[in-house]
Amino acid sequence: MERNQSSPLPPGSTIGIIGGGQLGRMLAMAAARLGYKTIVLDPAKDCPASQTSNHHIEAAYDDVEALKMLGKRSDVITYEFENIPANALYFLEENIGLKPDRLALEKSQDRLVEKDFLSQLKIATAPYHPVSSFDELANAVSLIDTPSILKTRRFGYDGKGQARLPLNPSEDELAAAWTSVGESESILESFFIFQREISVIVCRSATAQIVAYDPAENVHRGGILRTSEVPAAITASTANEATRIAISIVEALEYVGVMGVEFFVAPNGDLAVNEIAPRVHNSGHWTEAAGIVSQFEQHIRAVANLPLGDCARHSDCVMENLIGDDVDIIPSLLTQKGVRIHLYGKAETRPGRKMGHFTRLT
Amino acid sequence: MERNQSSPLPPGSTIGIIGGGQLGRMLAMAAARLGYKTIVLDPAKDCPASQTSNHHIEAAYDDVEALKMLGKRSDVITYEFENIPANALYFLEENIGLKPDRLALEKSQDRLVEKDFLSQLKIATAPYHPVSSFDELANAVSLIDTPSILKTRRFGYDGKGQARLPLNPSEDELAAAWTSVGESESILESFFIFQREISVIVCRSATAQIVAYDPAENVHRGGILRTSEVPAAITASTANEATRIAISIVEALEYVGVMGVEFFVAPNGDLAVNEIAPRVHNSGHWTEAAGIVSQFEQHIRAVANLPLGDCARHSDCVMENLIGDDVDIIPSLLTQKGVRIHLYGKAETRPGRKMGHFTRLT
Repeated sequence: MERNQSSPLPPGSTIGIIGGGQLGRMLAMAAARLGYKTIVLDPAKDCPASQTSNHHIEAAYDDVEALKMLGKRSDVITYEFENIPANALYFLEENIGLKPDRLALEKSQDRLVEKDFLSQLKIATAPYHPVSSFDELANAVSLIDTPSILKTRRFGYDGKGQARLPLNPSEDELAAAWTSVGESESILESFFIFQREISVIVCRSATAQIVAYDPAENVHRGGILRTSEVPAAITASTANEATRIAISIVEALEYVGVMGVEFFVAPNGDLAVNEIAPRVHNSGHWTEAAGIVSQFEQHIRAVANLPLGDCARHSDCVMENLIGDDVDIIPSLLTQKGVRIHLYGKAETRPGRKMGHFTRLT
Repeated sequence: MERNQSSPLPPGSTIGIIGGGQLGRMLAMAAARLGYKTIVLDPAKDCPASQTSNHHIEAAYDDVEALKMLGKRSDVITYEFENIPANALYFLEENIGLKPDRLALEKSQDRLVEKDFLSQLKIATAPYHPVSSFDELANAVSLIDTPSILKTRRFGYDGKGQARLPLNPSEDELAAAWTSVGESESILESFFIFQREISVIVCRSATAQIVAYDPAENVHRGGILRTSEVPAAITASTANEATRIAISIVEALEYVGVMGVEFFVAPNGDLAVNEIAPRVHNSGHWTEAAGIVSQFEQHIRAVANLPLGDCARHSDCVMENLIGDDVDIIPSLLTQKGVRIHLYGKAETRPGRKMGHFTRLT
């Protein structure tokens, strides 16, 4: 096995993927279409990605023997989620290499580090303050002086580990919020008054080629993405500015792979970055149905040292997640014109669980 | 396991696929997108479909124990190629069931049976005569009285088992042709003077719903499909007539699944059916890149008792096969706009071997 080459990974090579959920599944299918094999590390038997990849190592993410096996059997390793345990990350960096690399993970695993990083790049975010104790929370609330959101610094996703606070919260409200984040290191963010949310899916190659899809307009409900629509109802200058910011982030990190950058758009068009995700992103699933080259293929191209592809789309569209019982509408979707369905092979339907998505071409 | 139900196959069910080449591979990926699992029977270790399916039974197609295992682990069984050995076919029909069923296989496994079947439906084909001996060959040549093609009745594909004969061939030319088909049961076909070749990809469900894609215009070289383009350069009335014929064939067979019907188009627009393929078809690969619902998904929907999908395409396109050393152009294709690449995961490049295809959206 030879690694860290800048030459294109030959067809037939194996790409290791840490995490076997739907993102890993779609990465595996994109890799197959480019002639690559895949091996997935995930603790869950019959996880979504195991069903469409060549091999599955059924082990915990921090199982060093499993990571060694993954390294031995892969020509390059990537991941579908940013919350890789620290010891696994250290092991992989030291011994195998990882694309995207540690720098991007460090910046995105911790909300405070992420915000500080963005601030250093002079990229606007919602005003924020670090909070590491109940007293600091009370102080931060007075400094921010608007309705606000308390978020754990690490391992939050899909609205978990978050608590909203009104302007001038009571002692009880403060205490409840502090409890709901597990009294762990957090940040308090100003509640940004936005007109809409958008995201940019950007991809950078090892040779610094950068491509980006048109921004998607996203609607969240209960902290979970429900729909992404392209084009977003924003001006060309807002779209250009969002794209410029996303590009500046991957440039600053010398990032390799796909990144999702989420923005708030203020009523006056001003942008603030909400968060960055160093991986393929739910708001980019539409690219598989309406793009020439999907975000999954772009990511595989990047980690395989191939030239990046065409970000053009052949159709405007709306992608909608199928969450929990939403799967009940599948029989109806099957009969509708212009609809592409994509299910994830999850055996059990649970409330809040992403079971699949569909894209309506418009 | 319950079989032969007309109710929709629930997500998480397993579809057995006989044959693990690129067609099986693309069927497996389409099945996954609908939430199904797949198990592939193919004698070749690491065959293309094994790489994207849940399970692979590595055994000969006529291995009864393997077929039993396939039956036991599958909720429905389909296939990617029509030349299933007779004993396997009998075993499956008697014990497990197969979609599409025996009738379609019987009609398409033998060129003489196929032509007779089409003639009974009053569907035009090139004039033909059965040939089962050298003497019959000489007689058939005099009856057809044009340049002609001798084709084995069974197991011919991609131009194999065929020999061309000029008008008034010499004794030596006749002998060479008879040798080249292995002195086996054959048919002699008139060389149909065509302006172009087209095909219709049609799909029929268990509830007799029928959908068809717009005809593709095909170019063959050395008996192998090189390109398929949609729309074909034919009149609307020719397109309608080809579609009507394709539909009449699946209706006559009470067929369930995707069928490819190849036509010759005479300079005056007259149509003759060249051959029918009771499976997903190379000339329908474009549907994966430019269709809302691909031929692979339509076939899975049909065998899973789901409603058939939208045959509309979002883009016009040309699909081109990557055969043998054609893979050398992949680096260039990777940098071109509007091109979607699809490779099949075959380890070894050989002359005449289909390694992948690409579709240029236009």
